[in-house]
Amino acid sequence: MKSIVELIEAKRDGKEHADEEIRHLIDVYVSGEMPDYQMAAWLMAAFLRGLSSVETAALTRAMAESGRMVDLSSVPGVILDKHSTGGVGDKTTLVLAPLVASCGVPVAKMSGRGLGHTGGTLDKLESIPGFSVTIEESALVQQLLDIGVVVTAQSADVDPADKKMYALRDVTGTVRSIPLIVGSIISKKVAGGADAIVLDVKVGSGAFMKTEDEARALAHELQRVGELLGRTVQCVMTDMSQPLGLAVGNSVEVCEAIRTLKGEGPADLTELCLALGAKMLVLGAVATSERDARTMLLDSIAEGRALATFSAWVAAQGGDADVAENPDLLPLAEFAAVLTAPRSGYVVGFDAEGVGRSAMLLGAGRETKESPIDLGAGLVLEAKIGDTVVEGQPLATLYASDEGLFEAAKARLLESIVIGDDEPEAPVLFHEV
Amino acid sequence: MKSIVELIEAKRDGKEHADEEIRHLIDVYVSGEMPDYQMAAWLMAAFLRGLSSVETAALTRAMAESGRMVDLSSVPGVILDKHSTGGVGDKTTLVLAPLVASCGVPVAKMSGRGLGHTGGTLDKLESIPGFSVTIEESALVQQLLDIGVVVTAQSADVDPADKKMYALRDVTGTVRSIPLIVGSIISKKVAGGADAIVLDVKVGSGAFMKTEDEARALAHELQRVGELLGRTVQCVMTDMSQPLGLAVGNSVEVCEAIRTLKGEGPADLTELCLALGAKMLVLGAVATSERDARTMLLDSIAEGRALATFSAWVAAQGGDADVAENPDLLPLAEFAAVLTAPRSGYVVGFDAEGVGRSAMLLGAGRETKESPIDLGAGLVLEAKIGDTVVEGQPLATLYASDEGLFEAAKARLLESIVIGDDEPEAPVLFHEV
Repeated sequence: MKSIVELIEAKRDGKEHADEEIRHLIDVYVSGEMPDYQMAAWLMAAFLRGLSSVETAALTRAMAESGRMVDLSSVPGVILDKHSTGGVGDKTTLVLAPLVASCGVPVAKMSGRGLGHTGGTLDKLESIPGFSVTIEESALVQQLLDIGVVVTAQSADVDPADKKMYALRDVTGTVRSIPLIVGSIISKKVAGGADAIVLDVKVGSGAFMKTEDEARALAHELQRVGELLGRTVQCVMTDMSQPLGLAVGNSVEVCEAIRTLKGEGPADLTELCLALGAKMLVLGAVATSERDARTMLLDSIAEGRALATFSAWVAAQGGDADVAENPDLLPLAEFAAVLTAPRSGYVVGFDAEGVGRSAMLLGAGRETKESPIDLGAGLVLEAKIGDTVVEGQPLATLYASDEGLFEAAKARLLESIVIGDDEPEAPVLFHEV
Repeated sequence: MKSIVELIEAKRDGKEHADEEIRHLIDVYVSGEMPDYQMAAWLMAAFLRGLSSVETAALTRAMAESGRMVDLSSVPGVILDKHSTGGVGDKTTLVLAPLVASCGVPVAKMSGRGLGHTGGTLDKLESIPGFSVTIEESALVQQLLDIGVVVTAQSADVDPADKKMYALRDVTGTVRSIPLIVGSIISKKVAGGADAIVLDVKVGSGAFMKTEDEARALAHELQRVGELLGRTVQCVMTDMSQPLGLAVGNSVEVCEAIRTLKGEGPADLTELCLALGAKMLVLGAVATSERDARTMLLDSIAEGRALATFSAWVAAQGGDADVAENPDLLPLAEFAAVLTAPRSGYVVGFDAEGVGRSAMLLGAGRETKESPIDLGAGLVLEAKIGDTVVEGQPLATLYASDEGLFEAAKARLLESIVIGDDEPEAPVLFHEV
């Protein structure tokens, strides 16, 4: 086996690592034998020289196997996971997990917290009074058998390589590397016990990937590496040129998710959940075509089964299941303010990241991992791209626990909404890869 | 000012840093505010993306100014330093420093210890009984005024950026980068108070730079960056396809240097010292042409002034000056062994690094910075490229304090000497850049 320095030099010189060389790097890094400064040099070399799909698969496997592997083999059927690369107002998991489970496909997902301008599913769930995201593995399996859906925080002993590498990438300029992103996403899914994964790669002003080319390259590599690891991975690319739905925050997003489970949600969020859900039912082998699957999903919503599964899920994780019928039980920040349109016209575009930043300024997001978060803060838009607005009429309602936060948040939000004279083309929500 | 991560990202993306950005990186790294892992990522980005000459000059200046600057302004005349990129049997400084000083040009040099297959001037000097390489700055200035020559160890408070970065480069695969090598060499010279520097870039099997193209690129960048810093830098490229002179070790090299100062040294070493020395006398403004300078150097040797300056220098640094007249006062390892020629023919080539490794096996070199060193161990060749050898006759004499070391050292040395039937072309010792 080459020394660590020789392995760094090999990647620096653009050479391809053997599988066991990559496993060795991950092993000695997790054990502490390879210090951060050597991994930082390797990460930068990998960033600039690239990793082949075979190398990325070896990296992903080594990362997944660096800690405890969640064993869901006692749950019958194909276990599905769904992952989004993160966007503004993306509450898809809150709708999709119970919706798909209500049609007979078990969904097990480890999720993260929000950071920067994108929210996190765990924070949103914790805005439901009593909801707990920490579950023992045995209870997790039982909940999956009983209700078919479970969403938990990633526990510290699962995929420790990813935790250590992600923290290092964050401070060494090595985040935006497709092979390293793929390793981070897929290794967590593999360690979490998923058989099949639906990946929603967001593209646009509110997404990590700002251009379609970048997003497509990431989506292709996610599929290739998933296949090399024997997992079924389906990727879609979806629009993040404007927030998804109307609500951006935590409790306000849960509220919108509940409306969507009742069939009363915003059109774009509803359509995305049906499209992703149809893929999941086919992958889960309960439908033979996406067309049939779509009918099953719509029936579940219409018959109240989707919402009932949501309630059962919330109750199983200790939350107040009455929120499904009575969203007023969710916390909402004490003060509200309305942003009005400075002129009449069409909404022609958003800086979706700016909308996320405005919600952060209200207290709904975190600047650093240690920042506190206000689960009742956020904003609800009144208009999306293509809608007409009238001068002086509401563009959005903002919620905060401190009135002093409104001025900056309103200014940031106003900057992020473009009003013009000509009716714009509607953004395409969904691209197959 | 950009954040550290933004600066790493800028270099990663091939952007050019402003002077103050590079100074900031060096400042926060030396102060400890920038951890090793961030510097490692920046070093790898700089290795792969390169630094412009202007960036390298800014790096060099910031490194030089990261600690105490030696002030030699009270010494009249142009203060000269001479540096070699390291080779096998390179005892040039031991000859050149007193030789040039004896002609009226002050030479002040901070030197290093040997590591790997190349020896270090400090180790060689310490083989002279009593010689001390640690001198206070005030005593250093006085010695320079009195004798015109001083060679010391680099003190810890001079160029701390280089010490910290070099140690990190060594373990992160970022050593062989021309801008980083230039920064390391020139920053030490600038911090050490030199006005003009003669740089001897070694090229060939025993050198760090194995090809002439690499060596030329390094030499050009050393000159360019020296000029940008307002220092006169003259580079030459010299042959390291075979050891310089015949002796490889510590005391054996001092012995050969003394012979050379008496005019009885090997032809290649003598010629190199005259050529470099002539440049130094012209730079030091005591000669108007290299031709005149050469005559001055030869006169100094013939009249015994070069050797007298050597003795005065040794005495000033606490050493036994009698070694100049009586080299038997130098330590020599207890045991000797002779390597004989396995066949008759011409010496057609060397693996010069292999010769250095053989000397290490005898105890004359260090594998790591902490390894002990045997100052009396080493080897003396009997033949160089172009010489004829006869089967069974001596090729070299080896010296060690433990007879058990001879077998491996002889085997390594034998592998490193190529004997053939046809008379080879003589290697060209000296290339102007």
